[in-house]
Amino acid sequence: MPAKNTTKVLIGGKIITLSGYESEEYLQRVASYMNHKIAQLSELPGYSRQPMETKNNLLSLNIADDYFKARHQAEVFEEDSQRKDKEMYDLKHDLIEAQIQLENLKKENEQLKQDKEALAKQNRQLEEDMDSLLNK
Amino acid sequence: MPAKNTTKVLIGGKIITLSGYESEEYLQRVASYMNHKIAQLSELPGYSRQPMETKNNLLSLNIADDYFKARHQAEVFEEDSQRKDKEMYDLKHDLIEAQIQLENLKKENEQLKQDKEALAKQNRQLEEDMDSLLNK
Repeated sequence: MPAKNTTKVLIGGKIITLSGYESEEYLQRVASYMNHKIAQLSELPGYSRQPMETKNNLLSLNIADDYFKARHQAEVFEEDSQRKDKEMYDLKHDLIEAQIQLENLKKENEQLKQDKEALAKQNRQLEEDMDSLLNK
Repeated sequence: MPAKNTTKVLIGGKIITLSGYESEEYLQRVASYMNHKIAQLSELPGYSRQPMETKNNLLSLNIADDYFKARHQAEVFEEDSQRKDKEMYDLKHDLIEAQIQLENLKKENEQLKQDKEALAKQNRQLEEDMDSLLNK
């Protein structure tokens, strides 16, 4: 189990002490993301006049929205990945089938070459025999 | 552009009015997720004694953590999907190559069969000629 870290981060202008198993680098990235969200919200007209509770709700709802969108994206990519597994399975199947056909054709080819060679040899023999008969 | 919705949701026991282009169903799902997060946090020892600010920070940090994890998962699946694209490209390439080889071998086989047939015919002719010579 990794050691528990205590990290101070600055969120919304306030120092917050976080303690957990996540790395300081990760916690700082989370803090930086939250500050970016707060900055985005601050640009909304009328935001500064809202009570703290509304501001907090807006912030957590906004982050939750990002979470849902990221999760949706993860699902889309996961389905995509699964669809590709299926496609790859079919491709591999087709490839193996083609390779088996290739092997069979190569063997057939080899046999045909041998047959052809045997026939040609027989042919030469017959021609020689014929020549001998004719020249007797 | 879809119509702007105004939806009332219950988060942390309080009614919050949300307005936006998201569907009510989506906003209710987000609210339900947030209530689940709040319930999880409430189980932490000492949580109930924390000031509201700390509770709010814990909630938004927790959701941000979920967001980072979902984003990471999306990235992993995306890379996976891209790796599979590359693999599929190679498989398709191999399949096309095998199909070209198959076509060539089929043609070569066809030619060999014709050659063999021609030689066999020639042999039969020679044998017939030989028979005629011998029986003359």
